[in-house]
Amino acid sequence: MTAKHPKDTLTTMSELVLPNDTNTLGNLMGGRLMHWMDIAAALASMKHCNCPVVTASADNISFENPVKLGNVITIEAKVTRAFNSSMEVYVKVVGEDLPTQFKYRSNEAYMTFVALDPHGKPRKIAELIPETEEEIMKYEGALRRRQLRLILSGRMKPDDATELKKLFFEEIIKK
Amino acid sequence: MTAKHPKDTLTTMSELVLPNDTNTLGNLMGGRLMHWMDIAAALASMKHCNCPVVTASADNISFENPVKLGNVITIEAKVTRAFNSSMEVYVKVVGEDLPTQFKYRSNEAYMTFVALDPHGKPRKIAELIPETEEEIMKYEGALRRRQLRLILSGRMKPDDATELKKLFFEEIIKK
Amino acid sequence: MTAKHPKDTLTTMSELVLPNDTNTLGNLMGGRLMHWMDIAAALASMKHCNCPVVTASADNISFENPVKLGNVITIEAKVTRAFNSSMEVYVKVVGEDLPTQFKYRSNEAYMTFVALDPHGKPRKIAELIPETEEEIMKYEGALRRRQLRLILSGRMKPDDATELKKLFFEEIIKK
Amino acid sequence: MTAKHPKDTLTTMSELVLPNDTNTLGNLMGGRLMHWMDIAAALASMKHCNCPVVTASADNISFENPVKLGNVITIEAKVTRAFNSSMEVYVKVVGEDLPTQFKYRSNEAYMTFVALDPHGKPRKIAELIPETEEEIMKYEGALRRRQLRLILSGRMKPDDATELKKLFFEEIIKK
Amino acid sequence: MTAKHPKDTLTTMSELVLPNDTNTLGNLMGGRLMHWMDIAAALASMKHCNCPVVTASADNISFENPVKLGNVITIEAKVTRAFNSSMEVYVKVVGEDLPTQFKYRSNEAYMTFVALDPHGKPRKIAELIPETEEEIMKYEGALRRRQLRLILSGRMKPDDATELKKLFFEEIIKK
Amino acid sequence: MTAKHPKDTLTTMSELVLPNDTNTLGNLMGGRLMHWMDIAAALASMKHCNCPVVTASADNISFENPVKLGNVITIEAKVTRAFNSSMEVYVKVVGEDLPTQFKYRSNEAYMTFVALDPHGKPRKIAELIPETEEEIMKYEGALRRRQLRLILSGRMKPDDATELKKLFFEEIIKK
Repeated sequence: MTAKHPKDTLTTMSELVLPNDTNTLGNLMGGRLMHWMDIAAALASMKHCNCPVVTASADNISFENPVKLGNVITIEAKVTRAFNSSMEVYVKVVGEDLPTQFKYRSNEAYMTFVALDPHGKPRKIAELIPETEEEIMKYEGALRRRQLRLILSGRMKPDDATELKKLFFEEIIKK
Repeated sequence: MTAKHPKDTLTTMSELVLPNDTNTLGNLMGGRLMHWMDIAAALASMKHCNCPVVTASADNISFENPVKLGNVITIEAKVTRAFNSSMEVYVKVVGEDLPTQFKYRSNEAYMTFVALDPHGKPRKIAELIPETEEEIMKYEGALRRRQLRLILSGRMKPDDATELKKLFFEEIIKK
Repeated sequence: MTAKHPKDTLTTMSELVLPNDTNTLGNLMGGRLMHWMDIAAALASMKHCNCPVVTASADNISFENPVKLGNVITIEAKVTRAFNSSMEVYVKVVGEDLPTQFKYRSNEAYMTFVALDPHGKPRKIAELIPETEEEIMKYEGALRRRQLRLILSGRMKPDDATELKKLFFEEIIKK
Repeated sequence: MTAKHPKDTLTTMSELVLPNDTNTLGNLMGGRLMHWMDIAAALASMKHCNCPVVTASADNISFENPVKLGNVITIEAKVTRAFNSSMEVYVKVVGEDLPTQFKYRSNEAYMTFVALDPHGKPRKIAELIPETEEEIMKYEGALRRRQLRLILSGRMKPDDATELKKLFFEEIIKK
Repeated sequence: MTAKHPKDTLTTMSELVLPNDTNTLGNLMGGRLMHWMDIAAALASMKHCNCPVVTASADNISFENPVKLGNVITIEAKVTRAFNSSMEVYVKVVGEDLPTQFKYRSNEAYMTFVALDPHGKPRKIAELIPETEEEIMKYEGALRRRQLRLILSGRMKPDDATELKKLFFEEIIKK
Repeated sequence: MTAKHPKDTLTTMSELVLPNDTNTLGNLMGGRLMHWMDIAAALASMKHCNCPVVTASADNISFENPVKLGNVITIEAKVTRAFNSSMEVYVKVVGEDLPTQFKYRSNEAYMTFVALDPHGKPRKIAELIPETEEEIMKYEGALRRRQLRLILSGRMKPDDATELKKLFFEEIIKK
């Protein structure tokens, strides 16, 4: 198991928004977008662990701008940190109206995936070593986001989230 | 605009997990499930506002148990609270292996939708009046979850989330 | 093999009518609807027999009202009677235009399914015990509809369908 | 509006049975097949009326042999008779396992379609003139099948179906 | 392995152009059409070799006329020649606007497929014996098209393509 | 209309090979791949012309290695040259088996697209200025490939393809 770098896991996906992806006002449905984001993020995490993975969680997602029929969605996914058998992936979505050359932020999210052995059980994975400044920042934030996830899903008591606790109000919002 | 009750918005959706919905280990992919949850929740919110809607956000989702190929997914969605032009919807997903009669919790989530007028602009919607004890609890929790959403997406300063602040560690984890 | 009640098999499915489901005039294509009805009815019959099933037949279906793009289809399926290895399922489809709160009958049908063992051969199944008045009526009618099916597919001689014969003109139309 | 012959409406469709079309035992799901049959029959009726159509009804369908994953389905559809604004279409489905060169009857059905004007209202259509012996037989049977359809959907009283009445037990089973 | 005739491999496929098959101007996307052509041609070649096949190549395809939303595509595929373990298939696509009864040439192509044994390795196949004048012409041209394919994919040196060389400028354009 | 560079048009698309994309031996079907290549190439050409496009042709494609179920396909598309109203796009496809970290060449192709105005008529487009050595080589080769395309589709006489003629046997195979 060789350690990897975030850039080894970078996955780019372009999708054309077709009629069946939209609601009656011609806006991309949020669920379709989450479906594409999940596939892109799963591919990024498979590039890290080189084994099958399963989605463990998706953090809060805000859809900032509506994406219109005929626009192009570009999804970039990159692993931010590897834990024992799970990986956190950062996913960024940009919409683009090609005729008018207008690019806009659609949304971003953190998703986590668990690496599986051939019997479908979690397996140990290699380390991820961040390189750029942004990667290091995301790597460090991963620990706090993980504590927040555990609290929000009721699997950790707030009092035990010492690191999150003192940093919560300053840090979590900078994602 | 007549006020409605949560039960007026209840939407039930059953889906059979087919080969294309699964990864190579035969587990339902998280993104496909989020896609179905989004449609069910959008229908519930349309039953409240009687107009087109667009997904505004999806809260943290943890996938608790893998759903297998050939299993059946039952999704129940119900509006928990209506704000000015947005609605919070509670979505609960149960998996079932019919041959062995085994039912299991898959996951649950809160999603928000914005009601749109024919020009695609947000429009005012009717009130939602909770009736059962559980509906009232979810109705009240909606305010705190909303503050958390605004903080997590960087649109509210933690200091302004007075209600959330004092209740955060006791309440948010009870969802 | 424990006997079951119709209510144990109730399956509800909601589907949003998307562009690819419609013809050039924006009406839901009948075949797409039959596809959804078949899945809902298969799930209902699997809830009864707890094993894989295969569609054996679909009775006459009349499409009473066109269903429009963007409308919601709600399908309810419930087993009406269990025979040796086959089950009859009643399927009812309601369309709804959410913005105008207009609900309309789309169609209804009886479909039959055969329970299969792991080798794909028909297997014996449990009994179904109807409870409500309507369930009892449908349970009794199942025998006549079965004779009609056998005659229409050329597997029973009309003269042998004694029960159907005397009741045909009074009863069959009340479905 | 020039009269046409059944051969002018012949439509042939081949479909490969893919994983998502089958249940967990690898058999083609009945609903998917009905979906394909509906499209083939709609095309046949559009070849007759040269305008958009909508499915009005599907007669009793029995699935005679299971169709397996990887097999090929060949669907032939041909209009049997034109009424005022509706057409009856005969659809025949043959399955084939190409490696073993084994062809088998899957099922057959009669479906009816209504011709629509640009406002979605029924419109008058041209006559259909049968040529071969089989086409003439199906043309004549169309009247009786139509009376049966009206009775089964509760829109005709059995006593008014004079032609059907005297022929029912001899004729209807010869379809 | 019995020799076959081109007519034994004829495959006809009709497809209705649905919204998701088209771009924002309502024209059928070329890739969707190539997808359908590949399936039709694969079926034709499976009818010849009676075993699984895999696409080896697709020759130059020119899309001559745009195909519009709601039009019907009819694809005819027929094997032109069998080599050791590969087959060349001729595919012809005709578009049709049913309301106006307007039929037009969309495009045509030659595709090649390799016959596979159960381990996924190429396997020897039966001979194909052309019958009509057109079939004989296509059978003979297959050799030259094959040399052109090998040159275009860099697997044959132009100097070795003796037959192609002398005929190239007269013959290849008559396809 | 500002001139652009090939890098402005680069489009990357990753796709996971799902069950419905494969034949019964678990190999990606060639037609599905061509479908994805067409979308990636269309997006690249839309980035150049900033308007809707339609596929005009696809050059010879050889599928070099089978792509297996569960593998990931990465498609890169980049415009090589702009003519009056059409663009040539180079598409390169790489397959990858993530668990074994095995990457392999799948295939490559040149496709051409026509830029359309809002009435669906061809429109004049900006120039493309190649920058790297490889881009310049592809830019220059585009003229010869275009002559070959015109000859192969019967729209140019071989004698008029002066440039192609003298270079054909040396150059065309270097693509």
